[in-house]
Amino acid sequence: MLMQRCFWPVLFILLSIIVDIDGRQQSKIQPPMPFKLSHLTSNQRGNRQSTEVQQMNPCNGTYIRTNGTTCGLKEIIIGRCYQYQYTNRGPYFNYQTNTKDCTELYEAFERAVRYKPFCEINMSTYEEYFKLTLKDIKPIDRGMFWSGTNMIAHIYSNNGHNYITLEDTLAAVMLNQLTWCGKANDSIGFDYVNCPGACEENPWSDVAFWGLASKTFAESVTGEVHVVLNGSRDATDLAFRTDSFFAKFELPNFRRDQQFNVIRVNVLLLHSPDIPIREKCGEKSLLILEDLVRQRGFDYTCEDDPDALLMIMCGNEYNARECQVARRILRQEWDAKLFGQSLQNQPELFLLIFVLFIVMLCAALLT
Amino acid sequence: MLMQRCFWPVLFILLSIIVDIDGRQQSKIQPPMPFKLSHLTSNQRGNRQSTEVQQMNPCNGTYIRTNGTTCGLKEIIIGRCYQYQYTNRGPYFNYQTNTKDCTELYEAFERAVRYKPFCEINMSTYEEYFKLTLKDIKPIDRGMFWSGTNMIAHIYSNNGHNYITLEDTLAAVMLNQLTWCGKANDSIGFDYVNCPGACEENPWSDVAFWGLASKTFAESVTGEVHVVLNGSRDATDLAFRTDSFFAKFELPNFRRDQQFNVIRVNVLLLHSPDIPIREKCGEKSLLILEDLVRQRGFDYTCEDDPDALLMIMCGNEYNARECQVARRILRQEWDAKLFGQSLQNQPELFLLIFVLFIVMLCAALLT
Repeated sequence: MLMQRCFWPVLFILLSIIVDIDGRQQSKIQPPMPFKLSHLTSNQRGNRQSTEVQQMNPCNGTYIRTNGTTCGLKEIIIGRCYQYQYTNRGPYFNYQTNTKDCTELYEAFERAVRYKPFCEINMSTYEEYFKLTLKDIKPIDRGMFWSGTNMIAHIYSNNGHNYITLEDTLAAVMLNQLTWCGKANDSIGFDYVNCPGACEENPWSDVAFWGLASKTFAESVTGEVHVVLNGSRDATDLAFRTDSFFAKFELPNFRRDQQFNVIRVNVLLLHSPDIPIREKCGEKSLLILEDLVRQRGFDYTCEDDPDALLMIMCGNEYNARECQVARRILRQEWDAKLFGQSLQNQPELFLLIFVLFIVMLCAALLT
Repeated sequence: MLMQRCFWPVLFILLSIIVDIDGRQQSKIQPPMPFKLSHLTSNQRGNRQSTEVQQMNPCNGTYIRTNGTTCGLKEIIIGRCYQYQYTNRGPYFNYQTNTKDCTELYEAFERAVRYKPFCEINMSTYEEYFKLTLKDIKPIDRGMFWSGTNMIAHIYSNNGHNYITLEDTLAAVMLNQLTWCGKANDSIGFDYVNCPGACEENPWSDVAFWGLASKTFAESVTGEVHVVLNGSRDATDLAFRTDSFFAKFELPNFRRDQQFNVIRVNVLLLHSPDIPIREKCGEKSLLILEDLVRQRGFDYTCEDDPDALLMIMCGNEYNARECQVARRILRQEWDAKLFGQSLQNQPELFLLIFVLFIVMLCAALLT
């Protein structure tokens, strides 16, 4: 009796809810707009795109993309040094009230590389430069490292206001994304047309600058350190690679002496929207990393996709599948804010109460 | 009979759902992390924070915050000019293959201001500079203007890759966030200690540079233009102010001649999370703006909080009330991605089916 009277109304209402939920999943998704900041996987520290290079001065007149020294290298370095110290002071502000002489810093860099063939460079080449620029930075609990997560890690570090990455330091800011190589027997002393990508006889030449930068920075951090890794790389490229800058130059140089010590290594493992997960905390290369960290006497934690980073990832790729529901919810939240509509959870709530009402009504009809 | 047997189980289940919904609204909200990029309302184009200034050289030795000319002004300007043209070429890449001489551009700027007291500056002062730097930029359908939405507008424009704001042009990049003022009868010719904020006898001195920059940029855009405004300002500060740079220097200078024309003005009206809405499209100052736009013969559209910008706003302020549900949904989406849990809508669905089951069971017991 009750079955007959109440089954169809209740089923109808439940089906309406289901259809409504699906309907809302499809609706309000507008055509994609041309918005993408950059990929999570962007890993570019240098800028070495090779094209056909004409035999003319690439730093004058018509722009030519070369893989040689960046035009205006000296001016860019000195300008960035002033800007770092006198405008957006970043982490520098916390550590340093004495300003540094930008010309002196540039000259230390220039002495290291000018007139010197690229293949004669090694890590000791830049020792003086880093001694002058990086040795006095001491991030406590705020040192951040990254591998395969360049863009997100730096949005998160927020120019050293939240965390301090190597790229937030003066030493790195001055040279980041620039290309350079010396040229012997040349009046200018830099090759603006072509810098070799690697030297067969000297594997250190290519990693000399960023290798020593990474090592020096890693030696400076104490307390907790944070490592942002990418768990969505392809099968051949794991979250923790033993040939990464982090593995080669950073982890081995965290301090273990009594007084100033790294205490814990916190891994933040990111998984890009729209890309399959390759590794989670406690899997594959993360296990290797955990072993290495613990062998060196540090505590280890690993967190998959911290909340703070999800919204940033979806902010950059808001058309990705995993971001669609949240995007629709945000639309509804703002519509509620704008037009006073009920919040997203409330329609279901009202429908549930309505179901209850129908059930009670059916019951009342029966008694 | 049915009431007695089924009322409490059904009510219990419904209450559980309600409590669960509330519970999920509260749960997973971890202690706030120190993350905030900047406020939507940040409107700073210059950097003029005043402190006690000691009578010594502020550009050497110990750092002193002054409200004078930025130390290293020349070096920063020239360095940025090279960087803009040879590294992150931005919108320049699309418009210009001939590079400009950075020293020449700096000298045009210097001629305009060096040795010249701040209060003698007016908009014509910078004519030569903008003629050299800005006249050849022609954004079609991609010109973007902003007022009270500095940070979000620029994340959205993405260094000229999505849209082109004034601040994405070489002319503005070279001087953005710097302070300068000339000093007569002085060997250096710039005052590094104190730049006046305004001149009583000459109201143009303070807006001369950015006023002419805005005017020149506004004259260059064609097709559709986009204006990002802030509908969450306080009561005294409307989304469209008749004394804003946009009202004074930009809107009146959009081109209306036959060949190269602005066609439509699209307003994107943003409302910050956690701040009450002051105005929506079609209200108060937006009506004044619409009138002005239509009087000048352009089409007008206005959109409250486009989808693409909501996620960016919440990415910056992910602890805000309006962002909480979306944040929880993202957490659930990533948990589903990581651990294969069901998606966010499905628990309610299962509970509804369970309610139906209980109702049917009660009915079965009765029959």
